[in-house]
Amino acid sequence: MNKKNRVFIATSIDGFIADKNGEIDWLHTLPNPNNDDMGYMEFIRGCDAIVMGRTTFETVLSFNIPWPYQIPVFVLSRQLNNLPPNLTDKAHLVKGSLHDILKEIYQKGHNQLYIDGGRTIRSFLSEDLIDEITLTTIPILLGGGAPLFGDLPQELNFELLETRTYLNQVVQRHYQRRK
Amino acid sequence: MNKKNRVFIATSIDGFIADKNGEIDWLHTLPNPNNDDMGYMEFIRGCDAIVMGRTTFETVLSFNIPWPYQIPVFVLSRQLNNLPPNLTDKAHLVKGSLHDILKEIYQKGHNQLYIDGGRTIRSFLSEDLIDEITLTTIPILLGGGAPLFGDLPQELNFELLETRTYLNQVVQRHYQRRK
Repeated sequence: MNKKNRVFIATSIDGFIADKNGEIDWLHTLPNPNNDDMGYMEFIRGCDAIVMGRTTFETVLSFNIPWPYQIPVFVLSRQLNNLPPNLTDKAHLVKGSLHDILKEIYQKGHNQLYIDGGRTIRSFLSEDLIDEITLTTIPILLGGGAPLFGDLPQELNFELLETRTYLNQVVQRHYQRRK
Repeated sequence: MNKKNRVFIATSIDGFIADKNGEIDWLHTLPNPNNDDMGYMEFIRGCDAIVMGRTTFETVLSFNIPWPYQIPVFVLSRQLNNLPPNLTDKAHLVKGSLHDILKEIYQKGHNQLYIDGGRTIRSFLSEDLIDEITLTTIPILLGGGAPLFGDLPQELNFELLETRTYLNQVVQRHYQRRK
């Protein structure tokens, strides 16, 4: 199976992944009576590991819920020297260039990667290392906050694979890198 | 008929309306054998005047084409003192607060307004004066350029009215302000 790096993330109409206060409660304000996961389980079933930045990792820990991932998580961090001992088998600290990090992950047998977290996604995009992006747009303008996208050294063309609408309000676009 | 201020604009996936060089050629690189206007004529038939900023106005002039608009254009500018004489009946300079400008336009009998140009759209959004936004997304990450959206003093909720896909690649979302 071809190696794939995939993004699956929700933003506001103006492209933010967190609001001006760092909050994400606006993601969950639309009525969702049947708890539609908007394709998340289907997406994650196609992945065999997650790569995320420290900020996303610490956000997940802050939820004070049982560790939510069934597949290995690789945490990119220059700052951290170790991860909580209860996560020894679940989360792994990785350091170095994205090239080195990916090599290490591939050597461990994972190659369908879920790339998560704003800074990590931007780093991967900067090096043209994202193969697919699924963007779920919540119908709100936040007017500030943490942006998903950032500067790129080059333009990147994508191909639209599919569009879905959830809850009659949330548009999800699935793009694949076109090279 | 209710007064409406509407936006109809194309952006990259990362929300830019012009690339790093101010160019918009990336808008037109997808094969479009039947010259699909992606809803533009249908949109503009529902408008009775256009409000645009100086930059957009000067961009239109720079195309060196016959004046493309059949409805009156109101040009917002603090800098300009007059418009080209050949446009006397077609384009009108307006100055002052958005409140004053809208009052002047309404008094002239126009109230289905097409609000165009990045800075002008952002000004209208800042004062919560946009009723509908039609966003047409070209499948490219530009990685820099002129952004459509900017800071807002408050979050603005929208309602998704419709989604269309053009050329199998271009997703168009039509939102209405939800108050």
